[in-house]
Amino acid sequence: MQSWDDERTRRQLIKTAGVVGSALALELGSAPRAQAAEEDEGRGVTRLLAEFVVDSKPEDVPQAPRAEAVRSVLNYVGCAVGGSPHETTDRAVAALSPFFGPEQGTLLGRRERADILHAALLNGMASHVLDFDDTQLSTIIHPAGPVLSAILPLAEMKGLDGRALLHAFVLGVEVECRVGKCVYPSHYAAGWHITGTAGVFGAAAAAGKLLGLNAQQMTWALGIAATQSSGFKEMFGTMCKSFHPGRAAQNGLAAALLAAQGFNSTEAAIEAKQGSAYVMATERDFGEITRRLGETWEISENAYKPFACGIVIHPIIDACRQLRNEHQLQADDIERVDLRVNPYVLSLTGKKTPQTGLEAKFSLYHSAAVAILFGAASPKQYTDDVAQDPAVIALRDRVRAEVDEAITEEQAEATITLKSGAKLHKRIEHAVGSSENPLSNVDLETKFRDLAAGVLPEAKITRLIDLCWKVESLNDVTELTNAAARSA
Amino acid sequence: MQSWDDERTRRQLIKTAGVVGSALALELGSAPRAQAAEEDEGRGVTRLLAEFVVDSKPEDVPQAPRAEAVRSVLNYVGCAVGGSPHETTDRAVAALSPFFGPEQGTLLGRRERADILHAALLNGMASHVLDFDDTQLSTIIHPAGPVLSAILPLAEMKGLDGRALLHAFVLGVEVECRVGKCVYPSHYAAGWHITGTAGVFGAAAAAGKLLGLNAQQMTWALGIAATQSSGFKEMFGTMCKSFHPGRAAQNGLAAALLAAQGFNSTEAAIEAKQGSAYVMATERDFGEITRRLGETWEISENAYKPFACGIVIHPIIDACRQLRNEHQLQADDIERVDLRVNPYVLSLTGKKTPQTGLEAKFSLYHSAAVAILFGAASPKQYTDDVAQDPAVIALRDRVRAEVDEAITEEQAEATITLKSGAKLHKRIEHAVGSSENPLSNVDLETKFRDLAAGVLPEAKITRLIDLCWKVESLNDVTELTNAAARSA
Repeated sequence: MQSWDDERTRRQLIKTAGVVGSALALELGSAPRAQAAEEDEGRGVTRLLAEFVVDSKPEDVPQAPRAEAVRSVLNYVGCAVGGSPHETTDRAVAALSPFFGPEQGTLLGRRERADILHAALLNGMASHVLDFDDTQLSTIIHPAGPVLSAILPLAEMKGLDGRALLHAFVLGVEVECRVGKCVYPSHYAAGWHITGTAGVFGAAAAAGKLLGLNAQQMTWALGIAATQSSGFKEMFGTMCKSFHPGRAAQNGLAAALLAAQGFNSTEAAIEAKQGSAYVMATERDFGEITRRLGETWEISENAYKPFACGIVIHPIIDACRQLRNEHQLQADDIERVDLRVNPYVLSLTGKKTPQTGLEAKFSLYHSAAVAILFGAASPKQYTDDVAQDPAVIALRDRVRAEVDEAITEEQAEATITLKSGAKLHKRIEHAVGSSENPLSNVDLETKFRDLAAGVLPEAKITRLIDLCWKVESLNDVTELTNAAARSA
Repeated sequence: MQSWDDERTRRQLIKTAGVVGSALALELGSAPRAQAAEEDEGRGVTRLLAEFVVDSKPEDVPQAPRAEAVRSVLNYVGCAVGGSPHETTDRAVAALSPFFGPEQGTLLGRRERADILHAALLNGMASHVLDFDDTQLSTIIHPAGPVLSAILPLAEMKGLDGRALLHAFVLGVEVECRVGKCVYPSHYAAGWHITGTAGVFGAAAAAGKLLGLNAQQMTWALGIAATQSSGFKEMFGTMCKSFHPGRAAQNGLAAALLAAQGFNSTEAAIEAKQGSAYVMATERDFGEITRRLGETWEISENAYKPFACGIVIHPIIDACRQLRNEHQLQADDIERVDLRVNPYVLSLTGKKTPQTGLEAKFSLYHSAAVAILFGAASPKQYTDDVAQDPAVIALRDRVRAEVDEAITEEQAEATITLKSGAKLHKRIEHAVGSSENPLSNVDLETKFRDLAAGVLPEAKITRLIDLCWKVESLNDVTELTNAAARSA
C-alpha cells in the first residue's frame, strides 16, 4: 500500500493548496485562479486510482465492506436471474447471438452461453431491467451491474476463486462510485445516466485487477473506459436504460483486455482539460476521488430495494404493507386510504390511472393498493395485467394522497379508514431498504427466491443462494455460475 | 420521398416560426422563449432523419455524389489496408480475437476474419490509424471510417450488391455529417471527437438501411446509437484516437441489429431536452439537419489527404514538392529554404526537432524537408527512422519559417535559395487535396498503391483498385472484400 499511501499524502497536500487557492480566488473574484487550483487538485487522480487498485490486497478490505459485497453479489445474481427472461434480454440475445464467440461465460438464468464480452453485456442488462437492483445511496449509482457483469464471466473463463472476485468487485465499486461522486450531481443533471457513465470505469478497474494489470496498464484501462463513457437519462422508460449498465460492463471489460495488450490511452483521462470530469460535467470535486481512499469503502453504502419501483414510493408501500399484516386487512373492509407525502413524491409518482406495468411504477396509488392486496410490491405487482386488474383498480381508486411540506422524502403516513369506521394509522420514518433500516439477510433471500422463481427450479435456487453467501470461499467461481445457468 | 418531403416543409415552417420567435425573444430579453423556439425547431428531427433514410431510393442520389462516394470507398479501402499491420491494430486484434464470433467479415489487409461486429471495430480503427483518411470539409468529420466499416462486413455477410452498399454509405454519411453539423463547433470545442460521436449515428443509419429497417426501427436505431455516442479529443496522440471510429462503426451496427429485433429507444434521441444535441453541446442548430435534406449531399464535400500530416502543412509540402519536381532539386544544391505561413500554422506545427514519426507530423520543418528529399509526405515519411535520418535532419535544419498575417491558412510561400545563388519561388493558393484543388483519380490510385504496398501483392492491389472503382456494379460485395484480404 506504500506507493499510493504516499501518493495520497501528496495529493492531500495538493488538495489543501487547492482549497486555499480556491478560497483566495473567490475572494479576489479571480476565476482563472480558481480554475488553476481545481486543475491542481485533479492532477494525477487517474493514475492515483490506478495505483490504488493495482496495489490493493484482499486483506486491505475490512470485514464489514466484504460482508456488504457478499450481500450485493446475492442481490445481483437474483436480479440478473429474474431479469433473464425479460423481453428486453430476449430481444438483445436474438439480435446479437449470431455474433457470439466461444461459449466462455454463463448468461445467468438462461440456457445460452456466450463469449465473455457478450456475457458481460447481457448479464448487465438483465440485472437492471427490472429496476430492482442495488443503489449506492450517496450517488444513486446501481453499482453491481456494471462491475460484477464484467468480472463474473472473466473469473468464470479463467477459473478464478471467489476471494479474487469479491476483492475485484469491491475495488471496481470503489472506482465507479468515486468517479461518479467527483462529477455528481452536475453530471447527472446534464442528462447522463451515471450508472452507465461511471460504471464503465468500475468495470475496467475490476476486470483489470483480475487480469493483473500493472499501474501503467491500469491507467490506460481507465482511459479506454473513459472514452467510451456514455448513456442518456433520456432513455429511461425504454429498453436502452438497462442497455447502459450492460454496455458499461462490456466496454470496461474490453478496456482492461486491450490495456493488457499494451493498447494505450492518455495518462489523465479523468482530470485532463478535455477529460471526463470536464467534458461531461459542469462542476467537479476531485476530492471525492482522493479523500480517504483506502480508508472508507463505497460498497458499505450499498442498499437493496425491497420494492420494484422508485425509491420515493417505498415509505408508502412499507406503511400499507405493515398495516395489512398487522390487521389482516381485506380490500373489501376498506373504505378509503389516505396518504400524506412530501410534495416531490407526488410530483414524481402521481399517476392516478396507470395502464401498464411500467406506468404503475410511477403511481403511488397503484403501489399502495398492491401493498394492501398482496403484501408485496415485487416485479410481479408491476405487470400490465396487474395494472389492469379490476380488484387493484377498485382499491387504487379509493387511495388519496395529500402533500405535506413537513414530511420528508424518507417519511410517509398512511391512514386506512375501514367500512366499520375504524381508522388505522402508520407513520414511517425510514422505509425498509433504506440505510437506516436495511434489508435483512432473510429479506434478501426472500427477494432472491421471488425473482428466481419460475426461472430456475427451487432446489437450484436454494443451492445458488447458498453459493452466493459463501462466494468468498469458493475455489472456483464456476461453481456459482454453473448453478445460475438454466439447464438446457 | 413524399413523406419526408412533406415533413420537411412542415419543419421549414416550424423553423421559420422558430427564427421569428428567437428574434422576438432576443428583443424582449426573454431566454425561455428563445429556448422554446429552439425546441420547436428540433421537434421530430430524429424521426425525420429516420424516414429520410428509410424512404430513400438509390436513384434519388445524383451522379456527382455517387461518384464522390466511389472515390471515398477507394480512399477508405486503401487507408484500412495501409493501417492493417499497424501496431495499434495488432494489439487490438491480440486483445479481442479470443472473443471473435463466426468468421463473417474480412479484416481488410489481414489474414484473420471475425464476426461482423469485431470486423467493424477493427477495420474502422485501421482506416483511421494513419491519420490519412477522408475529411468532410464543413465538419472535419472523417466520414468513411464509421460508416463503411459498419456496412462493408454486413454487406459481405449478406452477399449484398455494390449498389446497395454505396447507397447506404451515402445515406450514412448524410446522417453522420448533419448530426455533426447540428452541434458543431460547440460540441467539438467541448472536447468530443466528432468522428466518433457523430459517426455512430451514420453507422446505425447505413447499417439500418441495409437491414431494411422501417421508420420506427430506424428511429430506435438512431436512439440506440445516440446513447453510445462517446470519445474524447483528449485521446489524440494515443491508440484510442483510431479506436473511436472503430467503436462508432461497431456500436452503430449493433444499434441497427438491435432495432431490427424490436429493441426500442426514445423517439427523440437527438432533440429531446436530455438528448444528444443538448447533453453533448452548448449550442445547436437543428436547421443543419433539416435544411435541404435530400437536395444536397454531404459526401460531395469529402476530401482526401495527399499528405499524412495535419492539413495546415499541406500548402507548404505542395510548394516544396512542386519546386523539387520542376527543378530536379538535390538536397546538396540547397543553401536554405524560407517559408512564409499564416501564424496559426506555425503555432500548430512549429516543432523544430521532432524525435519521432508522430512528432514529425507536427513539424513543418520536417515536412518541407521530406517533400524536397522524397517528393512525398506519405506515412513512410513520418516514421521514427525518417525523423532521425541524418539527411532529413541536415535539410530540416536549413528550413526557416516566417509568419505573415496576410497569408491565409490555405496559402503558403516557399523560396529555395540554391548554393549557386539562384532563388526558386512558389506560392500555393490552394494545396492539392483541398476542395478547390481536389485529388485526381490518378492521385488517389497513387496514394492507394503507396498505402497497400508491402501489405498486399501488387497484382492484388491493382485488382482491388479496379474493384473499388466499379463498386457500384458489383453483384456481390464479397468480390471486393475477398480481394482486400491478405492470403493466409
